[in-house]
Amino acid sequence: MRRGHVGRTIGEILAEVDQRLEWAQIRFKEAKESGLKVIGLYCGYIPFELVRAVGAIPVSLCGSDADAIPSAELELPRNFCPLIKSSYGLAITDTCPFFHFADALIGETTCDGKKKVFELLARLRPVHVMQLPYDKNAPGALDQWRSEMKRVSEFLVGVTGIEPTPERLSAEIYYENELRRVLQRIVRTFERPVPSLTWTQMLSVRSLTDFVVDRAPYLALIEELAEAVSVADAAVGDASTSGRMPRVLVTGSPMSPETNKVMRIAEESGALVVAHDACSGTKMFDRLVDEEGDPLDALTRYTLYIPCACMSPNDGRVDLLRSSVSTYGVEGVIDTVWQACHTFNVESVIVQRACREELNVPCLKIETDYSAADEGQLRTRIEAFVEQML
Amino acid sequence: MRRGHVGRTIGEILAEVDQRLEWAQIRFKEAKESGLKVIGLYCGYIPFELVRAVGAIPVSLCGSDADAIPSAELELPRNFCPLIKSSYGLAITDTCPFFHFADALIGETTCDGKKKVFELLARLRPVHVMQLPYDKNAPGALDQWRSEMKRVSEFLVGVTGIEPTPERLSAEIYYENELRRVLQRIVRTFERPVPSLTWTQMLSVRSLTDFVVDRAPYLALIEELAEAVSVADAAVGDASTSGRMPRVLVTGSPMSPETNKVMRIAEESGALVVAHDACSGTKMFDRLVDEEGDPLDALTRYTLYIPCACMSPNDGRVDLLRSSVSTYGVEGVIDTVWQACHTFNVESVIVQRACREELNVPCLKIETDYSAADEGQLRTRIEAFVEQML
Repeated sequence: MRRGHVGRTIGEILAEVDQRLEWAQIRFKEAKESGLKVIGLYCGYIPFELVRAVGAIPVSLCGSDADAIPSAELELPRNFCPLIKSSYGLAITDTCPFFHFADALIGETTCDGKKKVFELLARLRPVHVMQLPYDKNAPGALDQWRSEMKRVSEFLVGVTGIEPTPERLSAEIYYENELRRVLQRIVRTFERPVPSLTWTQMLSVRSLTDFVVDRAPYLALIEELAEAVSVADAAVGDASTSGRMPRVLVTGSPMSPETNKVMRIAEESGALVVAHDACSGTKMFDRLVDEEGDPLDALTRYTLYIPCACMSPNDGRVDLLRSSVSTYGVEGVIDTVWQACHTFNVESVIVQRACREELNVPCLKIETDYSAADEGQLRTRIEAFVEQML
Repeated sequence: MRRGHVGRTIGEILAEVDQRLEWAQIRFKEAKESGLKVIGLYCGYIPFELVRAVGAIPVSLCGSDADAIPSAELELPRNFCPLIKSSYGLAITDTCPFFHFADALIGETTCDGKKKVFELLARLRPVHVMQLPYDKNAPGALDQWRSEMKRVSEFLVGVTGIEPTPERLSAEIYYENELRRVLQRIVRTFERPVPSLTWTQMLSVRSLTDFVVDRAPYLALIEELAEAVSVADAAVGDASTSGRMPRVLVTGSPMSPETNKVMRIAEESGALVVAHDACSGTKMFDRLVDEEGDPLDALTRYTLYIPCACMSPNDGRVDLLRSSVSTYGVEGVIDTVWQACHTFNVESVIVQRACREELNVPCLKIETDYSAADEGQLRTRIEAFVEQML
């Protein structure tokens, strides 16, 4: 896989990532004009593979724009998840090009907030809501989720008219796995004493996956990045150390490059963020979908085992935390929870307990929203947290 | 059904209701000492009939004690449903006799908050969580809920060793329906220009159902009340009017006699509260469980059709609102939502829309908690609301 020659620096490649994020809306406009259907998603429980297999383009509609929140608050409670408020505000004001281009939406029952807001969004677009079982080990859970996969697949066929045949599905699984494999290669840099990337940068790299019409240039780009990172890692060597920068894992509710204030402040406060196991981080690519057997079965298993806080019980969360702490040599955990995100907020009790009783690492829990109002206070708390690990 | 002679006044009967509520914990202590098992419940989706049919006593563990909240907040988020915080605080401090006596708990996935807190409660008691389908019309929803009924039934048999045979279940359905029929008779007084009860009083009458060991005296008591109310109604006659007291419906999150500040303030502000369609009100007794056919099927259908805000879509909510407005001559709606109760909070958009666009009645939405801190502000808002209807 490695090429002998890497033409561009990591910085140059990351600049292209940012540029592609900026230009993504143009790509979607072109796709729409060429007759392609766009399907808006709000969650990783809905497999991109299935959307691609019916010939449509999946796009994440999770809002990261704080400016869209006041419009949403004219209807929705103020005391509510900023991600949902932002998403809803963008939708009702028609200020998000991706929502604008979406022909239909796939929702899910991952949280009360989204579940109920999909009822309101149904006034704007056709919405299909997937009913997610929360206890993956309960009898019938896998069968039920398999039926939901079948049901959403029928909904999607209704949009595009294209059947997601096993061949098409398998091809999509292989392609998405390719992306996952490359992302897995890239994050190996965070196992090293001195990583060649920051997680803030990695957030953009991963985020771009959610806004891709044509995956080939994206795959080529992240392959180039993986290679550049690997070359940089080799150049730095194993002997280097990051000095006294405590190695931190950021977990909890998902964040975007625009809403990553906690991660950014942690990095600015002298922490080395080496792990981010949220669904904006490794959780969406650290496993591969099974490439053998029935592809819809494989997608059913893969998604049902995502250890999101919506699951109950969610043993996978602590398993993932444990393995991340070990893999990346984590010395402290920051658990970030969006305002009024009850599932992550209550699960934080379990995360903190695991840190304290089993993993023996300090844990800082932060509940925040999209505003900049608490940045000063957050900085004080995060600096103190980093300092205690020195 | 009517007796020729009613010995006690409504006031005397209501005094016995309050006394029975006060003494309920003693009754549960005696029941435990006699070897009976107590099953703690947090929701109307779990049929009392099933618990009774395995020879156990069901008891509601929905906390209404504000004083228990600070203990809960040592672990749980502060920005969280007061009902759940109170319930959890009472449990972990072992200050609720009903929790204390509970041998096991049945939870459900009606909201994110409870769903996740059941994971924490599992450290204190055996917990079985029922997985509730949210879209009652989705293919397979009824079958899925039927399986959950079967599963919880097996859990209950594990606690008591008694099989809920169809005969036992049918007998319990008949008995609980008897209670519902009497409660239905009582609330007919609210259809009249001058009801013989207040809804604040009715809240206690209904609430007592949740804390009954032996139902015979309770049934006799509410039958006596129904008779007394009927006699009082006849004495008042149809010609009387309540003057200019606007007829108000209180809807939304459930309240208890201890946490009914919104209803109480509405009554104190000159409103005639004539309807309360929450699960602390008519929602739990306005329909009967089918007494024909398979009893577990009947309970499955009955519970799945409870129009709680956890359902999505929840058309039943507006249907119930519409029929309540019509039955009770409602002139204004107060939609009360507990702090951070996302399902009722977002569904309020739909309730308000229905009031505005279809029912043509004003609607006041109130988000509050168990504290007395906002009583002054609530009083101002509710008084203004009542005044606008005069």
